[in-house]
Amino acid sequence: MEQLSTLKCEACAASAKLLSADEIELLLPQVQGWKIIVDSGIQKLKCDFATRNYTKSVAFTNAIAEMAEAINHHPQIILEYASVTVIWWSHNIKGLHKNDFIMASKTSELF
Amino acid sequence: MEQLSTLKCEACAASAKLLSADEIELLLPQVQGWKIIVDSGIQKLKCDFATRNYTKSVAFTNAIAEMAEAINHHPQIILEYASVTVIWWSHNIKGLHKNDFIMASKTSELF
Repeated sequence: MEQLSTLKCEACAASAKLLSADEIELLLPQVQGWKIIVDSGIQKLKCDFATRNYTKSVAFTNAIAEMAEAINHHPQIILEYASVTVIWWSHNIKGLHKNDFIMASKTSELF
Repeated sequence: MEQLSTLKCEACAASAKLLSADEIELLLPQVQGWKIIVDSGIQKLKCDFATRNYTKSVAFTNAIAEMAEAINHHPQIILEYASVTVIWWSHNIKGLHKNDFIMASKTSELF
């Protein structure tokens, strides 16, 4: 199976298809620590990263932001004193695309 | 009445008293756009700032983080593409201290 973190996230069109439950079931074990949440009916991919202190939290947030901006796909990032929570989903298709798993994998690698 | 943004936020002891409902009612009109939320029984002060783009969101997040670190009082910051949500409360007293209103005021000024 191809390794997610080595794949490229490409902008997905509004007509792109959401991942099926079967596809999600196959991809989820490849992004350790990430779980599926449902927020206002939208499936999202969430992970809490425990950091040692605020400086680390801010640095990690900026590293994710830089990656997000480079690829033009932006997660929600919740910055706290000793944790950073990252939530990926595809806004234009209101749910999960393979891109989100690629970005989740790259986020974990960055951490 | 003293202007909140000119006051200094000082570390509050675990024995510090939570603001009373009357005190909150007096302080809230001084921080325009901020509202009280209750999260797991803890009163917090929340504001959504609409930014024009991701670069602005990231810059604002970093400005808040720098202020927070300097004063050693850290909010929750939710960074999104075109918005930054900031939530202040005092962790050690599990609720709102005058410090949180001071920091909310300084956050709005920073924006």
